[in-house]
Amino acid sequence: MTGTVINAPAGTPFVEVTREFAATPAQLFKIVSDRDLVTEWLGPRELDATVEEYDARTGGAYRYIHRDEAGEYAFRGVFHTVEPDKLIIQTFEFEGAPGQVCIEKMTLEPTATGVRFHQQSVFPSVESRDQFIESGMEHGINDSMDRLAELLAKES
Amino acid sequence: MTGTVINAPAGTPFVEVTREFAATPAQLFKIVSDRDLVTEWLGPRELDATVEEYDARTGGAYRYIHRDEAGEYAFRGVFHTVEPDKLIIQTFEFEGAPGQVCIEKMTLEPTATGVRFHQQSVFPSVESRDQFIESGMEHGINDSMDRLAELLAKES
Repeated sequence: MTGTVINAPAGTPFVEVTREFAATPAQLFKIVSDRDLVTEWLGPRELDATVEEYDARTGGAYRYIHRDEAGEYAFRGVFHTVEPDKLIIQTFEFEGAPGQVCIEKMTLEPTATGVRFHQQSVFPSVESRDQFIESGMEHGINDSMDRLAELLAKES
Repeated sequence: MTGTVINAPAGTPFVEVTREFAATPAQLFKIVSDRDLVTEWLGPRELDATVEEYDARTGGAYRYIHRDEAGEYAFRGVFHTVEPDKLIIQTFEFEGAPGQVCIEKMTLEPTATGVRFHQQSVFPSVESRDQFIESGMEHGINDSMDRLAELLAKES
């Protein structure tokens, strides 16, 4: 299993996540666009999750809620572009920081041995990006990518 | 008439536009959210414009086309948040540069003499921000802000 690479250059509002999976772009897209699978992979393992809406097509919207003993964390956004098996561009807002909206671009590219997942998140400021990193972003991203790999292994 | 201030710090993916208008936030919001008025203010004066869609509410979408003798320039996006009289957060893509999607946050704040319009655009890279500036962004923004002021004067 190739590891997840997270790149967040200092002084910029960008975060980039790269991961290779032993699957086809179509297999990976099927999972990341499936409303019923969102709670199986998105976010840290230890949180309970509920999906209110997850309409992964151009013009659709999503909202999901993570819960731990301390409380609830809701996230929402809209899908700007969804090109099956290739590309998802969406907005992303943690409702606990209202108005601090990111734009995220996920590309799925076939490689010799599988598929390369790449996601760029652009924050509205360097400060909001840094706060997100300090809030434990890396743990959530690593869990999400590992859980995706496990789902792909189960499906194949 | 207070002038338009455009701030695009070197080496960042940000552009900020600020303008004060002698109007209420509600008067300004009414114009910027009205599909039938988009062609009256958005973009350079000398271009013909057509609006295909402009559904300025949370979850809505828009697409419009500018034309000159050289060709057509289409723009599209989705509305992440629309709070009447206060806030619009939307995506923005020039279809001539597909996949280079910005996020734009417009706030309308009452002042002692009217309303302060502020819009931040965040580009997916410093390079795409710089290309947008070089393509004549300043002219388009200044025309848009002046045309808004003219429409407000006409309506009142």
